[in-house]
Amino acid sequence: MQLQSYLEERRGLVEDALDRFIPRTDEPPERLHESIRYSVLAPGKRIRAILVIAGAEAVGGQGRLVLPTACALECIHAFSLIHDDLPCMDDDDFRRGRPTNHKVFGEAMAMLAGDALLALAFELIADNAQTAPDDRVVPVMKLISRAAGTAGMVGGQVTDILSEGKEITADELQAIHTRKTAELIRASVLSGAMLSGASGRELAAMEMYGRGVGLAFQIADDILDVVGDEARIGKPVGSDARQDKVTYPRLFGLKESERRAGEEVERAIQAIASLGTAAEPLREIARYIVERDS
Amino acid sequence: MQLQSYLEERRGLVEDALDRFIPRTDEPPERLHESIRYSVLAPGKRIRAILVIAGAEAVGGQGRLVLPTACALECIHAFSLIHDDLPCMDDDDFRRGRPTNHKVFGEAMAMLAGDALLALAFELIADNAQTAPDDRVVPVMKLISRAAGTAGMVGGQVTDILSEGKEITADELQAIHTRKTAELIRASVLSGAMLSGASGRELAAMEMYGRGVGLAFQIADDILDVVGDEARIGKPVGSDARQDKVTYPRLFGLKESERRAGEEVERAIQAIASLGTAAEPLREIARYIVERDS
Repeated sequence: MQLQSYLEERRGLVEDALDRFIPRTDEPPERLHESIRYSVLAPGKRIRAILVIAGAEAVGGQGRLVLPTACALECIHAFSLIHDDLPCMDDDDFRRGRPTNHKVFGEAMAMLAGDALLALAFELIADNAQTAPDDRVVPVMKLISRAAGTAGMVGGQVTDILSEGKEITADELQAIHTRKTAELIRASVLSGAMLSGASGRELAAMEMYGRGVGLAFQIADDILDVVGDEARIGKPVGSDARQDKVTYPRLFGLKESERRAGEEVERAIQAIASLGTAAEPLREIARYIVERDS
Repeated sequence: MQLQSYLEERRGLVEDALDRFIPRTDEPPERLHESIRYSVLAPGKRIRAILVIAGAEAVGGQGRLVLPTACALECIHAFSLIHDDLPCMDDDDFRRGRPTNHKVFGEAMAMLAGDALLALAFELIADNAQTAPDDRVVPVMKLISRAAGTAGMVGGQVTDILSEGKEITADELQAIHTRKTAELIRASVLSGAMLSGASGRELAAMEMYGRGVGLAFQIADDILDVVGDEARIGKPVGSDARQDKVTYPRLFGLKESERRAGEEVERAIQAIASLGTAAEPLREIARYIVERDS
């Protein structure tokens, strides 16, 4: 299969849907909606949304029926980036070559835009009940809210901050990565499958796939922070090191980090071996996640 | 009926449930859970949670079956207070006589505690599917996410900030109040009724009740900011005026503000006239909202 055209097409679907689902800038409060759109509609890989779609397709579902949840994951991702960049957090002025949200709209507006995006995400998940049964939507809400909260992304962010400047073990680093990034990646692929009526066996396979890909994704991010081209990833390379954050390359070196990311990807691909050709995009995406250059 | 003992008993139910539903401080990340508990379990009236319960009871439902959603509303309320108090927003050092969350836990942790509380709220709503049908939980998720987001609380907060120091009309002030406070109050009473299987006629009555009480609640807050006893409300009296915020008393004077709040309460009580004795707590709560002294 042609991964690039697959990603291209799904990304187009997602971005059209985001544009429809997110409040317009001619509706009040206009400035808030500008701030929200500035971040959510900024160029991005849409990897979480595409995983929702690919998760649906892998079990015989249709991508367009899970678009609201796919967009919800992008809203949660955008919310986390806006809040991470704030002065009280990483204090970043640029993201992917553009000024960060608070540099353009001010701190108060940026924080509120993030808050609004998190609320909007759950509105979109509720809206997915228009194309999926209620008894599938409710468990997806549960899954995604947990993946975003103290057991997931926000919890991982806290542990990451508290570990700055400290010695931590490989297990502790993996626990941070799992919460901070992997849980939401796992929730993406699982929610697409759940909304499409996946069987218990299929969900178990997706679960393992999601864990492996999620962890590989964060290791790859750590590696890109060391070796990435500044222009490509749009923030100063090595910024994690300057902030004294523990990363995979710092703990294991580059080579061993790459080996571990590759191992997670292989494990993810094996987990969905039984799913047949419909899961081919998921396999390609797993490989892409460690090979991407931004 | 004895309103005080009614409020007392329901508040006890809510606070026990909050203590059960909110992650413990011996689970990681411990510091985040301390920060969350510091704010959510701080003394409070629990008016939103009690309105969920009273909304359920008014249509023949049971309070204990809607407790997760009642607690979700308290989580959203606590999230909004933590974020409002941050330096980039109102920059308040005290709330109800205690240091604000960021004064104790630092800005980053306070912001993340707020974020986690919003995610937890949606997890709790999803959990309410254990005691209510999925096809009632999904619309409640939609209602509450909208009431919290750009069409509700966060949107009202933005408009409030942007209007500081400007002349605004009575209609604009009402629009701010409706979004900032009334929408979530309305969502509280409606969600209790929806989860309990209220009829269309009952929901229409609750809708009107919620709007009236929500608006009266915010007007009463504005009035308390002028006339309240500093020790009672726990922040410097007149702090809204110092921040150059437009309030009801500033726009209409105290007497006219009190008259308007009373009018909204009467409208709310009339809206639920047909609901019989089961709605008596809602009527008493409506009166209490404008008569309270904190």
